Amino acid sequence: MRKIIIVGGVAGGATCAARLRRLDEEAEILVLERGPYVSFANCGLPYYVGDVIREESKLLQASPELFRQRFRIDVRTQHEAVRIEREKRELVIRDLVSGEEYRESYGALVLSPGASPIVPPLEGIRLPGIFTVRTVPDSAQIRSWIERHGARRAAVIGGGFIGLEMVENLACRGLEVTLIEAADQVMPPLDPEMAEYVRQRVSSHIANVRLGDAVAGFEKDSHGGLLVKTASGLRFGADLVILAIGVRPETKLARDAGLETGGRGGIRVDAQMRTSDPHIWAVGDAVEVKNAITGEWQLCPLAGPAQRQARVAAASICGREAAFRGVQGTAVVGVFGLTAAITGESEKSLRRAGVTDYEAVYLHPGNHAGYYPGAKPIHMKLLYRRPDGLVLGAQAVGESDVARRIDVIAMAIQKGATVFDLEEAELCYAPQYGSAKDPVNMAGMIAANALRGDTEIAPWRQLGSNGALILDVREPGEHHAGAIPGAVNIPLGQLRGRLEELPRDREIQVACAVGQRAYYAVRVLRQHGFRAKLLSGGYRTYKVIEPQCARQDARQ
Amino acid sequence: MRKIIIVGGVAGGATCAARLRRLDEEAEILVLERGPYVSFANCGLPYYVGDVIREESKLLQASPELFRQRFRIDVRTQHEAVRIEREKRELVIRDLVSGEEYRESYGALVLSPGASPIVPPLEGIRLPGIFTVRTVPDSAQIRSWIERHGARRAAVIGGGFIGLEMVENLACRGLEVTLIEAADQVMPPLDPEMAEYVRQRVSSHIANVRLGDAVAGFEKDSHGGLLVKTASGLRFGADLVILAIGVRPETKLARDAGLETGGRGGIRVDAQMRTSDPHIWAVGDAVEVKNAITGEWQLCPLAGPAQRQARVAAASICGREAAFRGVQGTAVVGVFGLTAAITGESEKSLRRAGVTDYEAVYLHPGNHAGYYPGAKPIHMKLLYRRPDGLVLGAQAVGESDVARRIDVIAMAIQKGATVFDLEEAELCYAPQYGSAKDPVNMAGMIAANALRGDTEIAPWRQLGSNGALILDVREPGEHHAGAIPGAVNIPLGQLRGRLEELPRDREIQVACAVGQRAYYAVRVLRQHGFRAKLLSGGYRTYKVIEPQCARQDARQ
Repeated sequence: MRKIIIVGGVAGGATCAARLRRLDEEAEILVLERGPYVSFANCGLPYYVGDVIREESKLLQASPELFRQRFRIDVRTQHEAVRIEREKRELVIRDLVSGEEYRESYGALVLSPGASPIVPPLEGIRLPGIFTVRTVPDSAQIRSWIERHGARRAAVIGGGFIGLEMVENLACRGLEVTLIEAADQVMPPLDPEMAEYVRQRVSSHIANVRLGDAVAGFEKDSHGGLLVKTASGLRFGADLVILAIGVRPETKLARDAGLETGGRGGIRVDAQMRTSDPHIWAVGDAVEVKNAITGEWQLCPLAGPAQRQARVAAASICGREAAFRGVQGTAVVGVFGLTAAITGESEKSLRRAGVTDYEAVYLHPGNHAGYYPGAKPIHMKLLYRRPDGLVLGAQAVGESDVARRIDVIAMAIQKGATVFDLEEAELCYAPQYGSAKDPVNMAGMIAANALRGDTEIAPWRQLGSNGALILDVREPGEHHAGAIPGAVNIPLGQLRGRLEELPRDREIQVACAVGQRAYYAVRVLRQHGFRAKLLSGGYRTYKVIEPQCARQDARQ
Repeated sequence: MRKIIIVGGVAGGATCAARLRRLDEEAEILVLERGPYVSFANCGLPYYVGDVIREESKLLQASPELFRQRFRIDVRTQHEAVRIEREKRELVIRDLVSGEEYRESYGALVLSPGASPIVPPLEGIRLPGIFTVRTVPDSAQIRSWIERHGARRAAVIGGGFIGLEMVENLACRGLEVTLIEAADQVMPPLDPEMAEYVRQRVSSHIANVRLGDAVAGFEKDSHGGLLVKTASGLRFGADLVILAIGVRPETKLARDAGLETGGRGGIRVDAQMRTSDPHIWAVGDAVEVKNAITGEWQLCPLAGPAQRQARVAAASICGREAAFRGVQGTAVVGVFGLTAAITGESEKSLRRAGVTDYEAVYLHPGNHAGYYPGAKPIHMKLLYRRPDGLVLGAQAVGESDVARRIDVIAMAIQKGATVFDLEEAELCYAPQYGSAKDPVNMAGMIAANALRGDTEIAPWRQLGSNGALILDVREPGEHHAGAIPGAVNIPLGQLRGRLEELPRDREIQVACAVGQRAYYAVRVLRQHGFRAKLLSGGYRTYKVIEPQCARQDARQ
């Protein structure tokens, strides 16, 4: 194993190489990178296009020279791995500058080829001005295209992480941006009602947000620009198109060598990141990983997991015990001052996995104490298992301290915490930093109250169903300014005196602005024998769920 | 139990009352509060003095009227509990307005009297212009004193949370502030070298910071101001003095009634927050709580734990199962743009508790990826148990995202996580939010590398001891700009070629700027058979440890 070749020199490959050297001073380590750079900051590319990161050099975290000097690692850029000859343990390599092919033998081979942007075979897809965002040269080309052509209008295809980051960066450069997304929501990992906050924010900053409409093709317009055509028949003019539809694992080398791949299209590895060939490991965007919560295979093209996989592979190659614990899908994106983050499962992903013993609660706590100026709401959704309260996932959207709460819940999920643990968490509190009941505590309390039977959560998808009465316990002024259709208004302060107005033979679904007064009302009602349930998150959650219902209705 | 009296209507009392109502719609609930307000935001008082919070009304989170209307709770402000007659289960109460005394019987009694600021019996301590900061009226008096007297100079006695917050708020109001602290450091919960960052920041913003010098007394000066005299013989002029030396549990009522108190001076309770009398519970700053890590009794006058204790007491009174899990001492303070936070044990508190099987590592990661503009260092210290890596505590100081990392580690500690879990944590990463290796991951990795035997940590207190050679692997320019005295400089890139310059018979303690290059060097050296250890945190940590050593030397 003392000669190790690593194919791919970005996050996974570079980390694996450096870790290998730290574990084995004597090994011969060779890194092959097809592109001109190793160890570049992939996740920074949209911000380089946006000129937030102004110098290309900032994106380059380590040069081949540094690898040589610091780690005695032989890094060959513009060298491509062409073919693995597994029986001989040899790799056929092409020098992309000279065009020559040569061979290197290996004791261990690590594949870290990454994933490539999906480029659908649409009419006009190869027209100049249509770009993907994967490498430093990609980004440099986009920058130069904007400058050379004086681009004013951009179309971004795809509303995921990269798509949204590109939307923001192009808009901040002054371009008029259209976002086109085939799904009914932006940010596919989020549930649609949580993604709605992001859509609203994006819509208030750019010219067009077109959801539920796929791109059908591209053509040149008469002024030298591009026309983007959608499946519904719309046309958007653009001087620049960014394809950010998603990525696909780069598995050609592995497949050609007969290595096992999985149903999601990635290289199949075990917990030591070893492929079906005991001399070959694979890490990063090209592999399938186990979901740490559901146990299902999935793709997870994120830098953090790639680095951890790289460390595991290095340890395994050096004969150490190490295992990758799987992924829980923690992710964050910032767009126009809003942060959206997720960890663990979404309601969508739970339903997709056939999980039914879960429950969801919503809340809208401030990022810090309301009495200290400048508090901003964090819109949260917590998913947990019934009846034991195991935390399954959380989503949060807001302007401040969003990643903090998701990170705490990420650690909670990692350690198998329940909502009762969240309720009891002892977190930082000073007026400008949090609340004595932190948003994480609040989420835990709402869920724990339901699991203890003190409340019952009325799922929003059952709003008003089975003849339920919807009770709004806000003040009349709030009710008149906007309420759930059909809701009866009895302010919380009057509730005890007006119990006789409420039916004892029907479910009562109680809402307020964000859920707190409704919870108090549910406690009053349940103790008086009513079948009261909580519409968690209140009218504020209703307002983001309503557009989903409207869209679903429109399709039916 | 259906008649419940609660003594004290701030954090613990108000929470307990509201929770009781939610659990028992029929109970008779009476809250007695000596002061004019209930449920006020204690933690906001310094910011009200500083005019960051501009209206007194913002501090008042719930009025007696709201308690009556929303919870059917009888709240009596300016009513003081005078005496508990335990045999009769009666409370003697004084109406502070009329002066009349009366009695109320109880099924359950909850004591939530809080803690009172320590006012040492010093010469002149009762002079006008000397204030403590506990209540809304206290703060209003300070505001009015500043305005009426045109105060220009303030002295703050005590460099803990409240003291630092008062320093900042008075300075931001334009006062010239002197801080006097008897201990050798500010922020007593932190270890001195971590508190040093805070001291430096405070020193750069105010006129005088005087550590290691106690206040000896006060006298009037000839211009109507005050003179603050210290034990060392210094005198500081002040128009205003804030005493923020600490607080003492209010236990008179409990002691007079013969309830058990503990060695720390607080009311002794069990995990259900029940005192030695089965009909009396106690919560908040007045009680002693168990340290969740060491199991020792301690005082923990913080709002978050008080609220959770109040919920446990309410549940216990209602016959439900609930237990307070103890405190881990998570706390945060902000001062002049710097945030300092802690969770779990400090090195000081571990030593005090006689724990010796711990290890400490230091690091200085950026709050987010360095390639994205504006990254700020977070100075961190992680404490963990050897050999299993159980996380015991963490401290962090920096300008951004400090509470986030401490909160994640707080959850880790709560769930019994190890440094190996921190290493594997899957946290939010996008360039403006974090790094693929988050500061929490980095802390875990450094510790895990040591526990796996890949490095060994040289404790800073053993710097240069036993004839160890100190090796600085930074570049010569860095070394010449400032280095640990006596350190030999061999840049990392030259290390492999200069191994023969290093001794094989001595320990080699390796440092760089922050610890990363030194770690690489340690790996090289150890694999070549040298006894190399890591000075974690590097020269940056040395620079905050040096002042401690200097102070200790000065005393010897």
